[in-house]
Amino acid sequence: MAKTYWNDGIHHRKAVFEVFFRRMPFKNGFAVFAGLERIIQYLTDFRFTKSDIDYLRETLLYEEAFLDYLSELSFTGTIHSVSEGELVFANEPIIRVEASLAEAQLIETAILNIVNYQTLIATKAARMKQVVGEELLLEFGSRRAQEMDAAIWGTRAAYIGGFDATSNVRAGKLFGIPVAGTHAHSMIQAYRDEYTAFLKYAESHRDCVFLVDTYDTLKTGVPTAIRVAKELGDRINFIGIRLDSGDMAFLSKKARKMLDDAGFKDAKIVASSDLDEYTILHLKSQGAKIDIWGVGTKLITAYDQPALGAVYKIVSIEDENGEMQDTIKISSNTEKVTTPGRKKVYRIINKITGKAEGDYITLYDEYPEEEKTIKMFHPVHTYVSKYVSDFEAKHLLAPIIVDGTLVYELPKLSKIKKDVQENLQLLWEEYKRSLNPEAYPVDLSQKCWNNKMLHIDEVKKKIAEIAKKD
Amino acid sequence: MAKTYWNDGIHHRKAVFEVFFRRMPFKNGFAVFAGLERIIQYLTDFRFTKSDIDYLRETLLYEEAFLDYLSELSFTGTIHSVSEGELVFANEPIIRVEASLAEAQLIETAILNIVNYQTLIATKAARMKQVVGEELLLEFGSRRAQEMDAAIWGTRAAYIGGFDATSNVRAGKLFGIPVAGTHAHSMIQAYRDEYTAFLKYAESHRDCVFLVDTYDTLKTGVPTAIRVAKELGDRINFIGIRLDSGDMAFLSKKARKMLDDAGFKDAKIVASSDLDEYTILHLKSQGAKIDIWGVGTKLITAYDQPALGAVYKIVSIEDENGEMQDTIKISSNTEKVTTPGRKKVYRIINKITGKAEGDYITLYDEYPEEEKTIKMFHPVHTYVSKYVSDFEAKHLLAPIIVDGTLVYELPKLSKIKKDVQENLQLLWEEYKRSLNPEAYPVDLSQKCWNNKMLHIDEVKKKIAEIAKKD
Repeated sequence: MAKTYWNDGIHHRKAVFEVFFRRMPFKNGFAVFAGLERIIQYLTDFRFTKSDIDYLRETLLYEEAFLDYLSELSFTGTIHSVSEGELVFANEPIIRVEASLAEAQLIETAILNIVNYQTLIATKAARMKQVVGEELLLEFGSRRAQEMDAAIWGTRAAYIGGFDATSNVRAGKLFGIPVAGTHAHSMIQAYRDEYTAFLKYAESHRDCVFLVDTYDTLKTGVPTAIRVAKELGDRINFIGIRLDSGDMAFLSKKARKMLDDAGFKDAKIVASSDLDEYTILHLKSQGAKIDIWGVGTKLITAYDQPALGAVYKIVSIEDENGEMQDTIKISSNTEKVTTPGRKKVYRIINKITGKAEGDYITLYDEYPEEEKTIKMFHPVHTYVSKYVSDFEAKHLLAPIIVDGTLVYELPKLSKIKKDVQENLQLLWEEYKRSLNPEAYPVDLSQKCWNNKMLHIDEVKKKIAEIAKKD
Repeated sequence: MAKTYWNDGIHHRKAVFEVFFRRMPFKNGFAVFAGLERIIQYLTDFRFTKSDIDYLRETLLYEEAFLDYLSELSFTGTIHSVSEGELVFANEPIIRVEASLAEAQLIETAILNIVNYQTLIATKAARMKQVVGEELLLEFGSRRAQEMDAAIWGTRAAYIGGFDATSNVRAGKLFGIPVAGTHAHSMIQAYRDEYTAFLKYAESHRDCVFLVDTYDTLKTGVPTAIRVAKELGDRINFIGIRLDSGDMAFLSKKARKMLDDAGFKDAKIVASSDLDEYTILHLKSQGAKIDIWGVGTKLITAYDQPALGAVYKIVSIEDENGEMQDTIKISSNTEKVTTPGRKKVYRIINKITGKAEGDYITLYDEYPEEEKTIKMFHPVHTYVSKYVSDFEAKHLLAPIIVDGTLVYELPKLSKIKKDVQENLQLLWEEYKRSLNPEAYPVDLSQKCWNNKMLHIDEVKKKIAEIAKKD
């Protein structure tokens, strides 16, 4: 496409694209935005290397003048985005790209790739966090992540969403995430004996979590862990034991009693074995005595919905006279009709309750923060409406890169992680439950809605004309 | 764990680990192994950098002598693996690692991460290939891949499994995969008019596939594509049109008729819209007129099962006297019991039918290739058995790295891709159907089975002893 635009001399025309997703991941009531650090990295490094150009010349047979254009390209446009850790919802712009048509088009795939994955995992992690409350969540998924980048960036997203630590030491190093792990069955097997293995592990680690299910959890694993903990006493910090197979509800209750009876009332029970928010909820409902949850596959791949489905759609384009023209895509899948125009997104917070009334999407020249009362109505079932007064309108899209220059300072990761939990305070409980949450309102302003209807009408007229001619 | 081994002075002991998965992905009858190129890359580059060591010192507080050991470490062990493109099955070793205990342990996560993802995607692709036959498959998933590595390596795996081309230009460049793509809706919207957009695209591309569903597929999209194709005639190569939304069965039949009536009987119809092997099969059963399938999300994330679940288990370890001792892990989840001993895997091919009778796992000192008749029996339901004579025993695990030196020459990617289809010729049709295939036999030799039973007995005795003492 960039080639077509360049060929036609319109590659420099100003275009506005917006990123949004159409459906809530996991049917959750909210999503947690993540990916901005990586997007900034990508855009500030955005270049065609010499070997890229050679490939395009030799294999795709691009002409020299176009290759010259590409080889000098960097990202010179403007990006607005919601902050990492912000709660986001279906059908609202979460990133807005204003750039030359060619530049905006060339960065599409990378931006979507990053946002889709990281937002998905931060959201999945937040669902688990909702279920465990103050109990610890450990990220154990690297072996099952979809290749190496996913292990690293997925861990960062999981930390944002509510995880406390990771077994991925590289992610620990890159992002300053706390590292936590235990040993594997192979260590018991290497010593061919649980007692020796636990003892040797304790000699080399002050903090000890012993994995107790290599042979028989209740008959040998837990008793041996207790024996070693007793023998070593204060010389180690006996954090507890890990269960990795079998009936976790049954085993954890039995193990808890054994630990308590031996005087280790503070020892923790770590569970890991294909866990997710559903199994965790069920284990808790059965009274399982688990204190720390190690989650792998189901988190890092977002197992029950491994793609978010965010899209990148053009909403406005400069015409031959230098005027911006809004643009729409119609579809026989009604959910795929886009909302034209460069837009803003506000979170409308009721000052009396301190809770969010919904999100409110306006065109660029509207200022709800200056209005006393706004009408919020459902963009499809328009009779569902309410008037809201005494509100704060929080503008969600912040400038990140302006005319190619980074103007945004990324908050510390620990701050982003904390923000998520604070942002969740704005939501009524009904939006936060993990099963069948209420749908949080994402409404269009009257002006934005009118503009969309106008464009639908125009396109329909055009279709009728062409059909008539045919 | 490496720290424990080093601390105890047993880090150099020789260990044997094997990689296998426990269940067939997608309940498919076969899996396609992929990932070896990346594993070789990882192992030959395996080092702790200075910044890694600094992190381990400052954050994890590792002691200097151990850090010295790590900073001098490279992979000096031996790797055997099945070839990329080979068909593999549950519960057989697909990679064998023989190395010092510490080295073997340190590379576990990366090896599993690579094998799990690439084998999964190659298998998913092969399932789609089984359904489309000779029709073309295009990989369109980069936007939805789980971060960037997945987009790149997933594309390579998809190509191995049976895809013909990709829209990911970087994967095209890195691996020499054919690149194919069309334009997006945004191009139509940028020109605000399908006719102009198609015309401009045609001016800059000889091969043209026009996307026809931006406004109305049958009323404007297809007629406009036909109009441009007629006007430009031989000046372009009108490959065809792409449908990306709506009822593909209905639209493709209508569009086919319109193209035929206009004299474009050779024009192809490309479909893309959340496709996978299930929707493709259904569309074909409804007589949809689709020639080329663009598959994104459902392929690149392996949507219906986004993790393979391969594990890395120790099977033998050097003892204090320098003798190798086989080792087993018992579990209350019966499928998690491992098979002890350093093993080989043979594909037993019946010389009369030319078809595989099953895979046959032996201990290292067995040579079924020298035997006249072997007894193959189910490793759980042992009464299910057969005697096989007049067979070829194909040894599947080839040396890749020997004592740290790469001894394997990777075949060309096009060769690997071709091998898959040839390997599939060895399988009866009953193993290849996409729904409810027969289970392909993966059997243990009598000696291997006896060894496993012996170890189960030994562990049970040990458990009983410890329980008695308690």
